[in-house]
Amino acid sequence: MSTPLRIGLAGLGTVGAGVVKLLDTNADLITRRAGRPISITAVSARDRHRERGVDLARFAWEDDATALAARDDVDVVVELVGGADGPALTLARACLQLAKPFVTANKAMLAHHGLLLAELAEAASVPLKFEAAVAGGIPVIKGLREGAAANALSSVYGILNGTCNYILTRMEKEGLEFGDVLADAQACGYAEADPSFDIDGVDAAHKLSILASLAFGARPDFAHVETHGIRDIRLADIRQAAALGFKVRLVGLAALVGDRLVQRVHPSLVPLGHPLAAVEGPLNAVVAEGNFVGRLLFMGRGAGEGPTASAVAADLIDIARGEAGPAFAMPAMALRGFANAGPEARTGRAYIRLTVEDRPGVLAEITAALRDAGVSIESLIQPASAPDGTALVVMLTHESPEQAVRRALDSMAALASSTAAPLFMPILAQDG
Amino acid sequence: MSTPLRIGLAGLGTVGAGVVKLLDTNADLITRRAGRPISITAVSARDRHRERGVDLARFAWEDDATALAARDDVDVVVELVGGADGPALTLARACLQLAKPFVTANKAMLAHHGLLLAELAEAASVPLKFEAAVAGGIPVIKGLREGAAANALSSVYGILNGTCNYILTRMEKEGLEFGDVLADAQACGYAEADPSFDIDGVDAAHKLSILASLAFGARPDFAHVETHGIRDIRLADIRQAAALGFKVRLVGLAALVGDRLVQRVHPSLVPLGHPLAAVEGPLNAVVAEGNFVGRLLFMGRGAGEGPTASAVAADLIDIARGEAGPAFAMPAMALRGFANAGPEARTGRAYIRLTVEDRPGVLAEITAALRDAGVSIESLIQPASAPDGTALVVMLTHESPEQAVRRALDSMAALASSTAAPLFMPILAQDG
Repeated sequence: MSTPLRIGLAGLGTVGAGVVKLLDTNADLITRRAGRPISITAVSARDRHRERGVDLARFAWEDDATALAARDDVDVVVELVGGADGPALTLARACLQLAKPFVTANKAMLAHHGLLLAELAEAASVPLKFEAAVAGGIPVIKGLREGAAANALSSVYGILNGTCNYILTRMEKEGLEFGDVLADAQACGYAEADPSFDIDGVDAAHKLSILASLAFGARPDFAHVETHGIRDIRLADIRQAAALGFKVRLVGLAALVGDRLVQRVHPSLVPLGHPLAAVEGPLNAVVAEGNFVGRLLFMGRGAGEGPTASAVAADLIDIARGEAGPAFAMPAMALRGFANAGPEARTGRAYIRLTVEDRPGVLAEITAALRDAGVSIESLIQPASAPDGTALVVMLTHESPEQAVRRALDSMAALASSTAAPLFMPILAQDG
Repeated sequence: MSTPLRIGLAGLGTVGAGVVKLLDTNADLITRRAGRPISITAVSARDRHRERGVDLARFAWEDDATALAARDDVDVVVELVGGADGPALTLARACLQLAKPFVTANKAMLAHHGLLLAELAEAASVPLKFEAAVAGGIPVIKGLREGAAANALSSVYGILNGTCNYILTRMEKEGLEFGDVLADAQACGYAEADPSFDIDGVDAAHKLSILASLAFGARPDFAHVETHGIRDIRLADIRQAAALGFKVRLVGLAALVGDRLVQRVHPSLVPLGHPLAAVEGPLNAVVAEGNFVGRLLFMGRGAGEGPTASAVAADLIDIARGEAGPAFAMPAMALRGFANAGPEARTGRAYIRLTVEDRPGVLAEITAALRDAGVSIESLIQPASAPDGTALVVMLTHESPEQAVRRALDSMAALASSTAAPLFMPILAQDG
């Protein structure tokens, strides 16, 4: 057992405290697996005196996280501060410019500045690692970067936000509306006081842009992730989807269409036979479709103290073992800036839910709008009317160009009988 | 792009030809991801002139695979010959003794000689890699060795043999008996002419001993894997299991019970809510339960040309990147020889199926045997009698020491009314 790998840890929230606990609890095991001890020497956080359930007195303290990078007794900086910019980015730049390995769980920073950081890491020939940034404890960064590395991937997609999946699953199982589950989840601490990063799909979009980079050799391009959250999903949608053989899931999907990149986070209908339909509660799962390996699925806990600490520590073990190449699976200069594929590039089946006045002739108007847009309907269901005189109309389309579906949606939204914005959800194909 | 990594490929069956195709098809991608080209320079197989659908004329040919290791134009040997001993082992020893990296898909050889090969690799400071040996294209070796490396694992288990899973799934879906599905699978090439390695659980046991080594820092110990295959599973068992809320799957499971190691391959009842219940047809899946990460699941294609070639090529990319440490996640000298946990160490629910004479008093004899052994019954079902005057009796036990269940089985087998050996299957707990 040779010299320890000495860690400077910035950020002592739930995950930071989890890393301290993990490195304590599994110290012997990690030493044997990593070939050397991994030990924290210095830490930094906003509040030195908060009770965190771990003994910090044995570590040096820095009020300014950036000072960790400069310490002679720190070999690797672990950043668990969060935020795309600000202190996290300052620390990352300082660390990499000092040619020290950098480990982070910060998906927002990687989604916005991943290319810059990869360039800095390569210029300094040091590892930049971020297993914890996507899907918590699931080793999906490693799975794409290394496990599936010999494959041309056609798509990578998955359930990337545990809060949304928890809400959708509870709506389904308990027959509750979105707002009620969200309020309860906030009360229990499963959702943030300001939940918009989660429920509007932004967190999933950050993660998706990282997966897309690894899968396709693309520069991380968060700005072009088309992002929709789950606020508009009603219990009625989940029930209709179930009756038709689908689950509603927030799916992040990246795929190449010709030479253009699709990146989308969208509530979607997942067929019951698809493995993502079985992903319930706060679990995450990622599917990659490769030209030799076929479909790979990785599933596990996508967030929380233990799983995220597990991923951070896996990165540290890789660094201790000397196993750490280019951050995004290939040199930053080899990453491509793909053109963005708009809706005209996509084809698929779709779910459409309309809220309309409950009077004769409305269905004729709707079906005329679909006909004019060239969209053909596989099934149309009109559940019972609401007391307020409105009715829901739910339709599944046949395989259609998404541009045509959008034209139909615009026409239907403009109908006098339409009392609320139509809801559109893509249907995930059984084969991805 | 620097010098190519030059491969000597031994074995040109389905998987060997797949590796040639993959390195051709994805050459540019692999060069970018690996940082250098990976190219085959020399090959060896039994029959030089067999048509394999790939152009071999550009490679040097060796009649004797061992000669590949000595060639100056070979940096890495890939062994796809198979067999625990014989030419594969001779080649592995020659290669590692010449300090050349060695990549293999040979689970039998690793199960029997893994420790020796790891020692040779470490003595020479070269990588020994075998992602393709377990679960085909699924990066589960990497998942355990690296992805979950920061965790103490309590168990690792999964569906490790695609042929058995294919047979069990078809029995269930099509209402067929084992023998009929096997015959059909053989006719279609999904099962070998001599299927015993697959259906008797030996192949799964080879793989399990490798997973156990990685998960627990154990010396590969195939000799102590308790191995049962699926020959005795009847359609009636699958139907009764389904009625009770379970699927029948061949599960390989390794766990620590105190300081002793359980390794078992056994047809098992898997609760419908468990992710392994959703693994159908020729798919494989592996679950690892870690003390920080919780449950991780890896799923994909467990065999076949493309998936296995994908795993072999992933190992080659790791080697090209310079990322390859100890074969079994820690130095061979640190691997422990665990004591073997016998049935007395295990506790769980069980499925028991008896074949008995259909006459009054038989149930009283059976239930007395269970009482005397101290096993309590959760449910007992007596499906319709057979025309031959025998009847099936199916029972689920409550959580019981397995030793007690075995005593009860012995007593029941000795009953005069028992017309065939009882069938026992453990029930996988919902939480693993």
